[in-house]
Amino acid sequence: MGERWRNTALLVIDMQKDFIEEASVRRVKGGKSIVPNVVGVVELARQRGIIVIWVVREHDPQGRDVELFRRHLYNSEKVGPVVKGTVGAELVDGLMIKEEEDYKIVKTRFSAFFGTNLHSFLQTSGVNNLVIAGVQTPNCIRQTVFDAVELDYPSVTVITDATAAATPEIHTANILDMKNIGIKTPSLHEWSEEFA
Amino acid sequence: MGERWRNTALLVIDMQKDFIEEASVRRVKGGKSIVPNVVGVVELARQRGIIVIWVVREHDPQGRDVELFRRHLYNSEKVGPVVKGTVGAELVDGLMIKEEEDYKIVKTRFSAFFGTNLHSFLQTSGVNNLVIAGVQTPNCIRQTVFDAVELDYPSVTVITDATAAATPEIHTANILDMKNIGIKTPSLHEWSEEFA
Repeated sequence: MGERWRNTALLVIDMQKDFIEEASVRRVKGGKSIVPNVVGVVELARQRGIIVIWVVREHDPQGRDVELFRRHLYNSEKVGPVVKGTVGAELVDGLMIKEEEDYKIVKTRFSAFFGTNLHSFLQTSGVNNLVIAGVQTPNCIRQTVFDAVELDYPSVTVITDATAAATPEIHTANILDMKNIGIKTPSLHEWSEEFA
Repeated sequence: MGERWRNTALLVIDMQKDFIEEASVRRVKGGKSIVPNVVGVVELARQRGIIVIWVVREHDPQGRDVELFRRHLYNSEKVGPVVKGTVGAELVDGLMIKEEEDYKIVKTRFSAFFGTNLHSFLQTSGVNNLVIAGVQTPNCIRQTVFDAVELDYPSVTVITDATAAATPEIHTANILDMKNIGIKTPSLHEWSEEFA
């Protein structure tokens, strides 16, 4: 098992309270329902010896490192989404970082590759194959996937029922676009049956 | 004052205990002696309304995000340099982040621009002019400076007596090389007298 999956990394993207919990105004509507499957993907990755990389946003309280179109969310008296050090920036209940084993990447844009050391980390770790879970399909998932293709990662897999968008239609349309550029799009169950 | 310096940022690089304190085996030999001047640069920057950006290294305990030539430092039973969350990764005594005002960038290579959101942050903050202090001159200082020139920042200033290397000769040789590509190289005193 270890050998088969040695060059694979799991990226779990933006599974943070502000993006997932029902009470959050910034939530991705389909996010809560995929939590059990994201937990399942992480468990399976650990069983297979796949490194788990937690990709999260953590923003400046003043929003100085947020996309321009979102800066107004940080200018009011309320605390903006996923501000560094706040509860909203924590991983949603059920997901936990194993400090000595996993790796964490903080990003400030859609793609996990934008302005981060992810590519450098993966290259020196010998990772060629990426498996992706999290939210949300049209933005952070898709932009990470397209960057991975542009960077010539030979195998990119999106677990379709461990990713989500605001609506099922948006999710499905984006999965189709990714499938059309060669991305593997199994369900968690299908991925669990994949072997060498 | 505010207007004059509105487009300037101060980058304070790698002023962390493991790189500065006398007791540390990984220290930059000239580092301790510049601490008062780095404190002075930060104070002057704050007076002028210049944003202070703390650029630090914070590494994985296993060294998986360290340069290849340094990975052996993380393979022994001792804790490697500036491991995330350790005392050695903290800023040296005398330097402190103002949480609501300053900004912090974590890097894993020499240049503050490599695998970070620094350029993106500076661009949307309207910063054109960089002032640089910290350690060490031939590596992280110089690589950041050369990247800034390549990225077309119109004004890059290195405070010569708030930067340091293992020996004065190495420091001086590198300052000369930077001067030769158009970098301003004032002392702290000279910089303090600079006006519009």
